[in-house]
Amino acid sequence: MALIVQKYGGSSVGSADRIRNVARRIEARAAAGDRVVAVVSAMGDKTDELIVLARDISKSPPAREMDVLLSTGEIVSSALLSMALHELGRDTISLTGAQAGIRTDAVYGRARITGIDTERLERELAMGRVVIVAGFQGVSEDFDVTTIGRGGSDTTAVALAAALHADTCEIYTDVAGVYTADPRVCPGARPLRDINYEEMLELATTGARVMHARAVEVGAIYDVEILVASSFDAEAPGTIIRREATMEQSNKVRGIAHQDHIAKVTVRAVPDRPGIAAQLFEPLASAGVSVDTIVQNASVEDLTDMTFTVAQGDLGAAIKTVEGLLPTLGAREVVSDPDLGAVSIVGTGMATTPGYAARMFRTLFEQGINIELISTSEIRITCIVASSRVGDAVRALHEAFALDQAD
Amino acid sequence: MALIVQKYGGSSVGSADRIRNVARRIEARAAAGDRVVAVVSAMGDKTDELIVLARDISKSPPAREMDVLLSTGEIVSSALLSMALHELGRDTISLTGAQAGIRTDAVYGRARITGIDTERLERELAMGRVVIVAGFQGVSEDFDVTTIGRGGSDTTAVALAAALHADTCEIYTDVAGVYTADPRVCPGARPLRDINYEEMLELATTGARVMHARAVEVGAIYDVEILVASSFDAEAPGTIIRREATMEQSNKVRGIAHQDHIAKVTVRAVPDRPGIAAQLFEPLASAGVSVDTIVQNASVEDLTDMTFTVAQGDLGAAIKTVEGLLPTLGAREVVSDPDLGAVSIVGTGMATTPGYAARMFRTLFEQGINIELISTSEIRITCIVASSRVGDAVRALHEAFALDQAD
Repeated sequence: MALIVQKYGGSSVGSADRIRNVARRIEARAAAGDRVVAVVSAMGDKTDELIVLARDISKSPPAREMDVLLSTGEIVSSALLSMALHELGRDTISLTGAQAGIRTDAVYGRARITGIDTERLERELAMGRVVIVAGFQGVSEDFDVTTIGRGGSDTTAVALAAALHADTCEIYTDVAGVYTADPRVCPGARPLRDINYEEMLELATTGARVMHARAVEVGAIYDVEILVASSFDAEAPGTIIRREATMEQSNKVRGIAHQDHIAKVTVRAVPDRPGIAAQLFEPLASAGVSVDTIVQNASVEDLTDMTFTVAQGDLGAAIKTVEGLLPTLGAREVVSDPDLGAVSIVGTGMATTPGYAARMFRTLFEQGINIELISTSEIRITCIVASSRVGDAVRALHEAFALDQAD
Repeated sequence: MALIVQKYGGSSVGSADRIRNVARRIEARAAAGDRVVAVVSAMGDKTDELIVLARDISKSPPAREMDVLLSTGEIVSSALLSMALHELGRDTISLTGAQAGIRTDAVYGRARITGIDTERLERELAMGRVVIVAGFQGVSEDFDVTTIGRGGSDTTAVALAAALHADTCEIYTDVAGVYTADPRVCPGARPLRDINYEEMLELATTGARVMHARAVEVGAIYDVEILVASSFDAEAPGTIIRREATMEQSNKVRGIAHQDHIAKVTVRAVPDRPGIAAQLFEPLASAGVSVDTIVQNASVEDLTDMTFTVAQGDLGAAIKTVEGLLPTLGAREVVSDPDLGAVSIVGTGMATTPGYAARMFRTLFEQGINIELISTSEIRITCIVASSRVGDAVRALHEAFALDQAD
């Protein structure tokens, strides 16, 4: 009798029919003797609708009230899914984040789970009930509602699996698992059988949207095996995220992630003196601009070029901030390119085996794709390229690293 | 520095504009130095939308999950109103029923408030904050969400006013107070300056929809003065519900209530023996049929006619149940009239002054309106008449009892 924590995303519970479908899936597992805790997201576009309501009232609503508002989306889903299971004759109960004992800090909008009091959950499971938990939310020490940010329901599920010592954590979504590349961009992409936490983290932070990085981190810390699979296609096996993926795969590029809507800013001819980076990036942080990759060119005559990337939406604020800093910095000018994307290859094998970077650069060169910026980690290489060439780059790299061939 | 509990109904918070309007009203009071607790209902048709969602999943959803679902409507309103006040620069906080300390029994869908733990409310008020409370909901001993049934937000407000020893409780709605009759039916109807709890209770239970009977009961028990006024028309003074209304008014009919969609069922030639009423009405209760007025005619040759009224929607179930009982009862037949209404006159004076009933019956007779059934209380007389004549009856009685003349 296994204990299973499942998570169903917004599109999986986007309508009454889909909620019934999820209920049937859970019922099949419960009927087979498993104990099930299911975490749900808000239905379809519900969260966005609530955000529109709030923006209509206030341009900058207080974060605490935003959390109160947004948490209702998941509560609605949890009650409806519990009703659908009850309709199938299954004893079931829905719990809010607070009722499920999910304690967080009070950083509204992106609270971190500080602990889970499993007493109520275990009591309900002991009564033979399927427990439906509203994802994405918790409760602060002051008994205030908090939400835990993007990908929150994934994190709720993995954290619950860790706290309950569940046998497995299953994340059901609208795709069939973790793909070698985005199948909408790369027709040859296929789902991986398994992948390790580090690789999944790198893919998640460089554009793979299938699972949020924080949930993977929690999984890695507590060693929770996570199955990512389709809630629509019961035949597809999905991808398992675990500490050690298949041995022979650890010496390969495992996947390619990409991101669009990236802009590049270059500050030209900055005097190369200590503290210059802080003088540039602290005001950007204060202006709410999130900077990704940063590159500083080698100095020529004590002058250097500082280049960084930002989300396209932040470019205006970034340029305005840097222009105001030019006199202080003693820099010549700001130039920018608003229309870029990123392509990353990820694989644990890269840490120990040379030649991956060279093969990546050659592949892009053969496609006539110019590399604007490069950044690397132990197990990842990212190239910033023209937005119009991102798709070509993904497809060419997918072929170059033989990702279309089965594991 | 008065402490005021206000309640804003669903139409008062039905859009972003209306929420802003409510925020401005609260802000004016807070700026004048009053401490304000505001209770809100769900926006406009939100509760009905949630009910439709649930019915799409299950014909008979579990009451506990229904309460979890419906409670979100008021939480959304409370967060949005708090945001709107914050936008006006006012320090404010929204609280769910549970956070506001509203404890109830576990009778989901129509829970009763068992107590209010005011610690958090008083702490927030002491910090100078306007507190917005999600109406209609509370929390059971097991920390489960409950809703307190129709008129729930009114009851929340009056109960909070009692628990906080507020100086006044103000119920804002889409009408300008308690009218002498429904102004949509009776153009001469006008708002009363004041009315006592007993009269308001009788009006509320016989069709006046301005305020729910349970809220009035709570007001009567804890002696909370309740102002009922328009949230749209700041000039209209509204109606005060209190223990003693204006002295000289206590010898008059104060208002006329009416109800539509009433059906009458008569069981003919029932043997008049002890226990026969129980044999008839217990099975009706088991079938979920709510019976209102019951009349038993005088016996002729040990046979009697039993007549009762039900809501039109329950008529089918009532007839089916009674037909099944005819052999057991030894009764001849069931006849019914599906298309009736009720007209009631209410006034404390009726208890001590004769002649009100006679004047009511004569007025209806002069209009050629046939009385199908009569029921009375100390301070109320109700006549069941043809549905098509309800409006005529209200208008004629309004004139006959001089209700169009100012207090």
